[in-house]
Amino acid sequence: MNERLERQLKFALEIDKAKNIFRQTHLSEHGRNENDAEHSWHMAIMAWLLKEYSNDEIDISKVILMCLIHDLVEIYAGDTYAYDTENLKTQQSRENEAKEKLFSILPEDQKAKLIALFDEFEAYQTADSKFAHAMDNLQPLILNDSNDGGDWREHQVTEQQIYNRQKKTALGSKKLFEVANKIIINNINKGNIKK
Amino acid sequence: MNERLERQLKFALEIDKAKNIFRQTHLSEHGRNENDAEHSWHMAIMAWLLKEYSNDEIDISKVILMCLIHDLVEIYAGDTYAYDTENLKTQQSRENEAKEKLFSILPEDQKAKLIALFDEFEAYQTADSKFAHAMDNLQPLILNDSNDGGDWREHQVTEQQIYNRQKKTALGSKKLFEVANKIIINNINKGNIKK
Repeated sequence: MNERLERQLKFALEIDKAKNIFRQTHLSEHGRNENDAEHSWHMAIMAWLLKEYSNDEIDISKVILMCLIHDLVEIYAGDTYAYDTENLKTQQSRENEAKEKLFSILPEDQKAKLIALFDEFEAYQTADSKFAHAMDNLQPLILNDSNDGGDWREHQVTEQQIYNRQKKTALGSKKLFEVANKIIINNINKGNIKK
Repeated sequence: MNERLERQLKFALEIDKAKNIFRQTHLSEHGRNENDAEHSWHMAIMAWLLKEYSNDEIDISKVILMCLIHDLVEIYAGDTYAYDTENLKTQQSRENEAKEKLFSILPEDQKAKLIALFDEFEAYQTADSKFAHAMDNLQPLILNDSNDGGDWREHQVTEQQIYNRQKKTALGSKKLFEVANKIIINNINKGNIKK
């Protein structure tokens, strides 16, 4: 086996670890915590399903790949909860280190492509990344809503915290922000999200 | 919210259940059983990583989507282990029923697209489906190999059973069949796979 293929297979095995990186979100029907691999898979299919609602034209194949790989750095950097102010401070430096370590397993050309895709996602500037972020926001929202807002109640998340994150969904899709907004208001009214 | 979007969101929530469909394969580092969502996510990324080894030209975006959705019918039909001869007999009728039930949640155009993609995968005729199947075969193989063949030992899988499935990897990628073959021979020699 040549070195290129060896590196690719080593990477393929290494990313298996994303299945052990657990998030704060719980699966529907009051299930267990969700992991990064499941979340990414779910986002990728949702991107395909909902692509017609993107504000701008997008390259759906690129968005799907972006969804699939956007959380891989957490294999080394761990998951940072969206409303955890303390860990959010160090998130970027931890993730930069992890990014270099993980993608360096790959041949140079593939390393460069996946890092560019990850960086594009993080920069939140292109239409593709804005739509991928809309999925990253909407996916846990619909799970949490289906569980009567259990994750928000557990972490005593406030309306302001939710909107700080979710309002950016409108950058990718105004239509899907309407959906998100309806869910948020509904959960504020039920007392699942603190005013 | 219009009916179209309602159906799309209902489907998005319904497929969450794939995260509770567990397979016989165990995660690397002697982890727990893997579920369908994780397996599909892993296959999709592997398809992108290894696309250069396809025998024929493929539409990688289509292959990735095929990988992501190929096991969704198991939400209702359950997972059928590749070497479970009894359940393999009823697999097709169970999966056809499940396919109709699941994809009917979607608007007609998306239902038609995903059923066509699923049927193409199952038919094993096109270059895209052959490469997706190569991933479906290789992904559990590398996990199981990393676990000293624990899944094969547990189910007392024979060389013949493995080759009946894995030889078809060569239809998608001769190069990746070489990899699979090396892994198989290695595990036969170690006594993990019965001669």
